[in-house]
Amino acid sequence: MNIGHLRHLVATAIMIVATAASTPAHAADPLPSWNDGPTKQAIVAFVEKVTKEGLPGFVPVAERIATFDNDGTLWCEHPVVQLVFAIDRLKVLVDKQPQLREKPAVAAALTGNMAYFEKEGEHAIAEIVFLTHTGMTVGDFHELAAKFFKTAKHPKYGVLLKEATYLPMRELLAYLRDNGFKTYICSGGGIEFMRAVSQEIYGIPPEQVIGSAGVLDFQDKDGKAVLLKTPKLLTYNDKQGKPAGIELHIGRVPIFAAGNVRTGGDIAMLGYSQSSKHPSLQLLVNHDDGDREFAYAEKDGASLKAAKEHGWAVVNIKDDWKEIFSFKR
Amino acid sequence: MNIGHLRHLVATAIMIVATAASTPAHAADPLPSWNDGPTKQAIVAFVEKVTKEGLPGFVPVAERIATFDNDGTLWCEHPVVQLVFAIDRLKVLVDKQPQLREKPAVAAALTGNMAYFEKEGEHAIAEIVFLTHTGMTVGDFHELAAKFFKTAKHPKYGVLLKEATYLPMRELLAYLRDNGFKTYICSGGGIEFMRAVSQEIYGIPPEQVIGSAGVLDFQDKDGKAVLLKTPKLLTYNDKQGKPAGIELHIGRVPIFAAGNVRTGGDIAMLGYSQSSKHPSLQLLVNHDDGDREFAYAEKDGASLKAAKEHGWAVVNIKDDWKEIFSFKR
Repeated sequence: MNIGHLRHLVATAIMIVATAASTPAHAADPLPSWNDGPTKQAIVAFVEKVTKEGLPGFVPVAERIATFDNDGTLWCEHPVVQLVFAIDRLKVLVDKQPQLREKPAVAAALTGNMAYFEKEGEHAIAEIVFLTHTGMTVGDFHELAAKFFKTAKHPKYGVLLKEATYLPMRELLAYLRDNGFKTYICSGGGIEFMRAVSQEIYGIPPEQVIGSAGVLDFQDKDGKAVLLKTPKLLTYNDKQGKPAGIELHIGRVPIFAAGNVRTGGDIAMLGYSQSSKHPSLQLLVNHDDGDREFAYAEKDGASLKAAKEHGWAVVNIKDDWKEIFSFKR
Repeated sequence: MNIGHLRHLVATAIMIVATAASTPAHAADPLPSWNDGPTKQAIVAFVEKVTKEGLPGFVPVAERIATFDNDGTLWCEHPVVQLVFAIDRLKVLVDKQPQLREKPAVAAALTGNMAYFEKEGEHAIAEIVFLTHTGMTVGDFHELAAKFFKTAKHPKYGVLLKEATYLPMRELLAYLRDNGFKTYICSGGGIEFMRAVSQEIYGIPPEQVIGSAGVLDFQDKDGKAVLLKTPKLLTYNDKQGKPAGIELHIGRVPIFAAGNVRTGGDIAMLGYSQSSKHPSLQLLVNHDDGDREFAYAEKDGASLKAAKEHGWAVVNIKDDWKEIFSFKR
């Protein structure tokens, strides 16, 4: 068989199975953890619309890009997972360099004095992140993060932190992928931190993770080429930085974007997704279920206001999610 | 048919065709424009080694990452395509703003005074790039670049500039992809400029293009979310910037990397690829064929020296390529 025939065979086979896979009407419910309601209906209607070839609204597979915030959208952000990692690392560092304790930010982090960080703001948090996330090679950092995820537990649920992901959102990721979407994380979190676990917990490979990134310094270390993580910030992938990060990494406008209510961090990304020339859907997760998860809101209500103004779909956890996690609480 | 059966069917079909596709011994020569010789043999031996499951040297599909420089590696760099575009744009700008002619760099660019740029160096080139590549939205820039590629011709060959790509390298891209590789461009060129044409000419989608990038400013333009290209450089994706760009965009070490001799721009990328824990192959294109293409070398010979020191495969165009382009010269 020559290459031409082979390519045709491959293309035909993929087309057949792809066509079969993209006929959700004949398949079981792809979103079993979602309650029936306007939000679930909006998701299913959108996916059916963009995947029906020949009908208006069809979007070619190559342009079916979906971006998801991570903290509070894909996994639980109480506590902020990367902050747990930073404090974990900080304890190790302080054992080796006790003089670090004299830094007010370090002392505050080690005693859990969150009021200090709320008062001092981002530069204090950045100080902790730089101390704990830089000065090593990318490879060494990846090992530290991978090790952390193997044992670090959620203080409320008792499961591993990496298990405290939202089951309905994992179903949504799979449903979109089954319909030809390429799924990305687009988060304010550290890009290398999330990549250590994104494939395992979300089925998202490292090259589809967009996050805040530091400047990397290429060096020769004992004859081996390595990249050193420096304490200089290259991109801050939150708020207005998210559309810029999407363009840098993807070069296309996503037709689907999901974020959550907490700091207004996803308003720009959802607005950017809506600028697509194609039909698009924006999803905003609203944490209103203090019994089953955590209830929190924005002081200024900016995200919910934007959702109302622009017609974004809101996920009210209490009403929209039948189950929140895979584990039994 | 339920989703479980369907997934199984998809997986089986893909496995069958993938297995068939990854048995080059039974297929026609995947690299017909390459002369038989040590370089072609090294490529085929490498691909066979990393794709044989169960044998030492096997690399899982997810980690089969290949990165290619663009100018002089995938397309002809005489003339530098992006410079032709910049001068084209400059003429339009000067028509609208004649006072721009008073800038020495603009005057030099318009009169083809390349000696000026060689003397003044990167900042003079940057001045021209910033003038012609910024101040518009990403969408508008994409349209300008797409329009340019539709008509701009190669001064020596008379074909469209986008047609002056190396046929053997396009065969190599296809061969690697047929064997489960994900192919990326990693070039010093502007990321958005290359993305305008990468899918069409190389089969490489925009999200697999890594290049020099400017800071993007998210704005609301008449009620629509847009990204404005600013004259501030975010990443300079050449030399030691290439491994950093690869980590930023991919998060994995490529097991295959290809560059070319001219400025030493690919030495760091090839060295980085060689740091992989897997078997890896590095390819360096040496432009030694002044009759059929252009002959040029580095003053210090650094790239060829590095190739010799580290055992990288060298493509001598005169000997290794049966054909250079698809068009008849």
